[in-house]
Amino acid sequence: MISLIPILGLPEFEYGMNIGDEIVKKIDLITNDVVVVTSKVVSKVEGRLVPSNSRDEFEKNVIAESRRILRRRGEMMIVETNHGFVCANAGIDQSNVPSGQIALLPKDSDRSARRIRDQIQAISGTKVGIIVSDTFGRAWRRGVTDVALGVAGVAAIIDLRGSLDANNRELKVTEVAVADEIASAAELVKGKAANVAAVLVRGVDSSYFRESSVAEEIVRVPSEDLFR
Amino acid sequence: MISLIPILGLPEFEYGMNIGDEIVKKIDLITNDVVVVTSKVVSKVEGRLVPSNSRDEFEKNVIAESRRILRRRGEMMIVETNHGFVCANAGIDQSNVPSGQIALLPKDSDRSARRIRDQIQAISGTKVGIIVSDTFGRAWRRGVTDVALGVAGVAAIIDLRGSLDANNRELKVTEVAVADEIASAAELVKGKAANVAAVLVRGVDSSYFRESSVAEEIVRVPSEDLFR
Repeated sequence: MISLIPILGLPEFEYGMNIGDEIVKKIDLITNDVVVVTSKVVSKVEGRLVPSNSRDEFEKNVIAESRRILRRRGEMMIVETNHGFVCANAGIDQSNVPSGQIALLPKDSDRSARRIRDQIQAISGTKVGIIVSDTFGRAWRRGVTDVALGVAGVAAIIDLRGSLDANNRELKVTEVAVADEIASAAELVKGKAANVAAVLVRGVDSSYFRESSVAEEIVRVPSEDLFR
Repeated sequence: MISLIPILGLPEFEYGMNIGDEIVKKIDLITNDVVVVTSKVVSKVEGRLVPSNSRDEFEKNVIAESRRILRRRGEMMIVETNHGFVCANAGIDQSNVPSGQIALLPKDSDRSARRIRDQIQAISGTKVGIIVSDTFGRAWRRGVTDVALGVAGVAAIIDLRGSLDANNRELKVTEVAVADEIASAAELVKGKAANVAAVLVRGVDSSYFRESSVAEEIVRVPSEDLFR
C-alpha cells in the first residue's frame, strides 16, 4: 500500500530558504519515504524568478532557456529546453509567482533534489527519496500530468527486463518511469489552486530506492526519438 | 490523503467472467472509491485473445487494430489505433497470456469500465469510479507509464481553467488528465511481474467524480496534434 499525503502549512518560499528544513518542521519522515516537491518552489529558493512585463520579454526568456523550438502555435512554443525536456514555453510560467515576474525551471533539478535530500538527512537523520516535479503536456493525449524533473535517492526508471510474467515468460521491454508515476500520483492530492508545494509518498517499494538521475535516465536524446 | 491498495487474490480471468463480482469478493468498497483494472483482464473476459504463432500473424493483427502506422523501428510499429490511441504495436502483447495467443486491447474501454462499474453497483450497491488502464510509451521521455484507456464515473480530465492560483490570478490552461494520473499511481503498487490485475484508489477528491469518457476527453484528434 502507498499513501499520498499533502504536506500542509509550508510557508511561502523565497530566495535562499531551506526547503528540507521547512518540510521536516511539518511532517515526521521515515526511511524510504519519498517527498515530491513542486519545481516552482525550487525555482523560488534558487533565485530563478526573473522580471517579465511583456510578451517580448517572456519570449526572450523562453528562447534563452531552450536549445531548440520544435513547434509554435499562437503564443505557445513547444521547445526542447537546455536540460533536454520537451515542453511548452520551456516550463516558464507566471502562476503562483509575484506580479511582473516569471519562474524559470531550476537549472539542474537532479542537483536540486539531492540538495533537499541532504538538507532533510542533515536535520532529521532520515534517508528519503526526493522528486522535483512539474506539470507538462504531452503528444497525442489531451491534458497535462505531473512528471519528474529531478530525483535523488529514488529511481527515475525501474528496469523490469528479465523479470518473469505470471506465465514465467520473460517480460520484454518494461522500463517503467516510476519517478514520473510518483510525480503524477502526488499531483492528485496537490491540485493547482491549493498551493501545496510538497507531497509525502509513503510505501514505495524498497527496490525503487537507488541513486538515479532524470537527466540521464528519462530524458530521451533526440537521435533516439521518433517524434521530434 | 489518497491510499493505493493492490487488490490481492483475484482469480485468473477468462472469457465471460464478471470482473466486478470478483473484485467485490476480495475487498470492501465505499462510495467514491476508484478501482483501476488492467486492460489485460478486460481483454480476457471480453474474448479479445486471438491466436498468433508467427511474426506475420502478430503484424497482421497490429495492422487490423490500427488506423494508421505513424513510425516503424525494427519490429516495433508506433500506430494510431482504431480507438485513436497512439502506442506501440496497437497495444497488443503476449505477456500474461497463454502461449500461442496475443491480447488485443478492449474494443471500447469506456464501455468496459461502465460495465464493471454496473457490475459492482449491482452486487454491492456501491457507486465507485472505474479506470481501465494500460502501459504505454510516450514521445520525448524514456520509460513507460500507465494511462487510462477508459473511465466510468470518474473524470478523464479536470478543467481548472478559471480557478485562481494562490495570488488570485486566474490559471490559464490547466486541464489535468487525472484519469491518467490515477492509472500511473495505481501502477506503483501493481508491478508488471506481480500479476495484480486491480488496484483500489481511495480518497480521490469528490469533485473528480462525474460521467466521463477517455475517448472523448483524452484522445487528441490528429488535427489538433502538433506531433503526429
